Amino acid sequence: MSSGLTSCPGSRTPLQRFRSERSTLNAGWLAASQSSGPAGPAANGRPPLRAGPRRLALSVRSQRRRERIGAGSFQWAARARRGANERAGGGASAAAAGGCEERLVAAAAAATGCGRRRAAMAAAEAGGDDGRCVRLSAERAQALLADVDTLLFDCDGVLWRGETAVPGAPEALTALRARGKRLGFITNNSSKTRQAYAEKLRRLGFGGPAGPGAGAEVFGTAYCTALYLRQRLAGAPAPKAYVLGGEALAAELEAVGVACVGVGPEPLQGEGPRSWLDAPLEPDVRAVVVGFDPHFSYMKLIKAVRYLQQPGCLLVGTNMDNRLPLENGRFIAGTGCLVRAVEMAAQRQADIIGKPSRFIFDCVSQEYGINPERTVMVGDRLDTDILLGVTCGLRTILTLTGVSTLRDVKSNQESDCMSKKKMVPDFYVDSIADLLPALQG
Amino acid sequence: MSSGLTSCPGSRTPLQRFRSERSTLNAGWLAASQSSGPAGPAANGRPPLRAGPRRLALSVRSQRRRERIGAGSFQWAARARRGANERAGGGASAAAAGGCEERLVAAAAAATGCGRRRAAMAAAEAGGDDGRCVRLSAERAQALLADVDTLLFDCDGVLWRGETAVPGAPEALTALRARGKRLGFITNNSSKTRQAYAEKLRRLGFGGPAGPGAGAEVFGTAYCTALYLRQRLAGAPAPKAYVLGGEALAAELEAVGVACVGVGPEPLQGEGPRSWLDAPLEPDVRAVVVGFDPHFSYMKLIKAVRYLQQPGCLLVGTNMDNRLPLENGRFIAGTGCLVRAVEMAAQRQADIIGKPSRFIFDCVSQEYGINPERTVMVGDRLDTDILLGVTCGLRTILTLTGVSTLRDVKSNQESDCMSKKKMVPDFYVDSIADLLPALQG
Repeated sequence: MSSGLTSCPGSRTPLQRFRSERSTLNAGWLAASQSSGPAGPAANGRPPLRAGPRRLALSVRSQRRRERIGAGSFQWAARARRGANERAGGGASAAAAGGCEERLVAAAAAATGCGRRRAAMAAAEAGGDDGRCVRLSAERAQALLADVDTLLFDCDGVLWRGETAVPGAPEALTALRARGKRLGFITNNSSKTRQAYAEKLRRLGFGGPAGPGAGAEVFGTAYCTALYLRQRLAGAPAPKAYVLGGEALAAELEAVGVACVGVGPEPLQGEGPRSWLDAPLEPDVRAVVVGFDPHFSYMKLIKAVRYLQQPGCLLVGTNMDNRLPLENGRFIAGTGCLVRAVEMAAQRQADIIGKPSRFIFDCVSQEYGINPERTVMVGDRLDTDILLGVTCGLRTILTLTGVSTLRDVKSNQESDCMSKKKMVPDFYVDSIADLLPALQG
Repeated sequence: MSSGLTSCPGSRTPLQRFRSERSTLNAGWLAASQSSGPAGPAANGRPPLRAGPRRLALSVRSQRRRERIGAGSFQWAARARRGANERAGGGASAAAAGGCEERLVAAAAAATGCGRRRAAMAAAEAGGDDGRCVRLSAERAQALLADVDTLLFDCDGVLWRGETAVPGAPEALTALRARGKRLGFITNNSSKTRQAYAEKLRRLGFGGPAGPGAGAEVFGTAYCTALYLRQRLAGAPAPKAYVLGGEALAAELEAVGVACVGVGPEPLQGEGPRSWLDAPLEPDVRAVVVGFDPHFSYMKLIKAVRYLQQPGCLLVGTNMDNRLPLENGRFIAGTGCLVRAVEMAAQRQADIIGKPSRFIFDCVSQEYGINPERTVMVGDRLDTDILLGVTCGLRTILTLTGVSTLRDVKSNQESDCMSKKKMVPDFYVDSIADLLPALQG
């Protein structure tokens, strides 16, 4: 009965929202993992996720990791930072090495409440400095890279902007591959398939497998939404999804056996509200999936809510990004704006697939067998890439070629909001090209 | 930079949001009132709001009332309730008169925190019972009506559902008019002009002035948004508004001299994000107005945000209703869903005109010279109609012919959330036809 002014989605804090998404997705994911049986569902010839004992073991390990992280995610990051700082000659000298570090460390020292507790824990574990958001110098990069075997990269704003590669970025990734590092690409963008991303990576010089294995390094929200639906809709005969999104999202869903309806323009039909509600609905629609949809319309919003009133119909959002940055500071509205509209009309919270929901990391973890202590997350957004990395116990590098700035970092360090406190990276670089000297040395 | 997960609109509590809207609008309204000068702007022949000394006096009185209400809105309601309860034979007997009252009073007594404080104040001021949400029996209605001279009604769900009048409602309003009561109609619906509402009122038998004065009793969000823009854009040469809304909203804006662009369908132009952003913008757009827009589209969302990036461009939402109820429990998505999408993409809070923002009450107050102690708000929604009435110190009647139920009332009474505690009416009726016996006696 309530209007948006009293609707739950509208009034949740970021942390509440994040927690609710995470718990929803983990519950769904683990439950489904365990129910999928030893063989797991084979979907249209796509190899199933690792099934049976290994799969369950992974799930359980991932569950234990979650519990540890839930109980004190700090330990992971602290151990990672301690290692890095020791090799970097100690956090104190690192902090003293540059003006920005001094500002950031000062800000950290000035932080109140949980900030002070965190600083105290850091001092205890990392030798007198919490080492948060230190410029990743060449020597620190060498120390860090010696300590990790997997690097996960966001794409837009990190590897490229639009169709232009960040200068030096392809060379940096080529050098990382030459050093035997495993690379993964985690993107909230739902408008490309794994294969399309793999082609773009190769086209812009970032390498990666071609042929049948193309896309194996790519974890986009279109693909991961398909994994989620395959789990949640397991057992449903010929399930369908009403998709607010593009062809790529539909292609990934159909690859796991979920038929898609609603893709493309949906103009207003009829003369008024009653006739809008008389527009026919497809049978067997088990989920409404909201991705990036440039054809989003009021008619689609109404239809989505009508499907969501049917018993058991899932509401899934690929991500909650409010904006999609383009070149020169321009941007377009992001998928999150569309998810919010549907959530408010349906008075339901969507299950969110993309960063910072840890479901997308669980997808990588399932396929890569990740050890968080030896994994780095590199991204340009504090509220998605860095928050995901911190929450999952990864080391984190912010690159300044995209959305977030050092001012944003400082603001988060000074914030009293727990969820913002988590959005502070271990290191930052002007560009991932800054990794090159460490790799060429 | 933040995604929806950390955006302010998404994380505000209902009370924070309501306060921010109220303060924004009152500030704008009063500032503009005082700046409009003794004559006030005459807009396209429409008589200006009462201008000069009286207008300022009203504004100041309304400001003082706001301060009193802000400091302790309870006193207003308590006085009103005390009067009603004395005439109703005391709240205790009223509370004992019916099962529902007993449940609700018990719930109130069981309420914790501020609930207990409120109950204690009520006990002190109203003679042992807070008298909240008592069925409005014929004798209580007689007592109440003897004590008031103005009744403000919501329309959809109170007077009619769709095109069908609530049985007995026209007769009740006719009887109220015959008793010399002043009636006003306050609706969040932005899809009709004042005149169109006046015609519907007469067509369904609710009477009201015809001819030149038609619509003088109607305060819809299309009209009140026009009043707001006339104030906020005073002095802007030939201002324009980008309108996500229908012809009625545009007509009201143009009647106060604000030219409207964007009404009607706006299909996707171009092949991709860059070409979408290349679509030309109109010059001199000073405000983006989001109302009920069945032609809402992604292209409109992008354009709205581009206008909002221009210095000084206002963002105004007609209301935040999440749903627009139709007959038989059916509904369509409300304006609030569209406002939320724009707010999230623009990373700005909209100024909200409609209930429960008190701006719409100030519009009535300016034109009617309202005495809150002698005014009743009658509505079917706790989160808009009743919250507005309580906040403005009016007596409140919930009618059960629309959205909210007694279960919702109980839930609000039992809630620990201050903003929900305010969403409890003084009285309830099954239908406003229940007023008839008191009027015919």
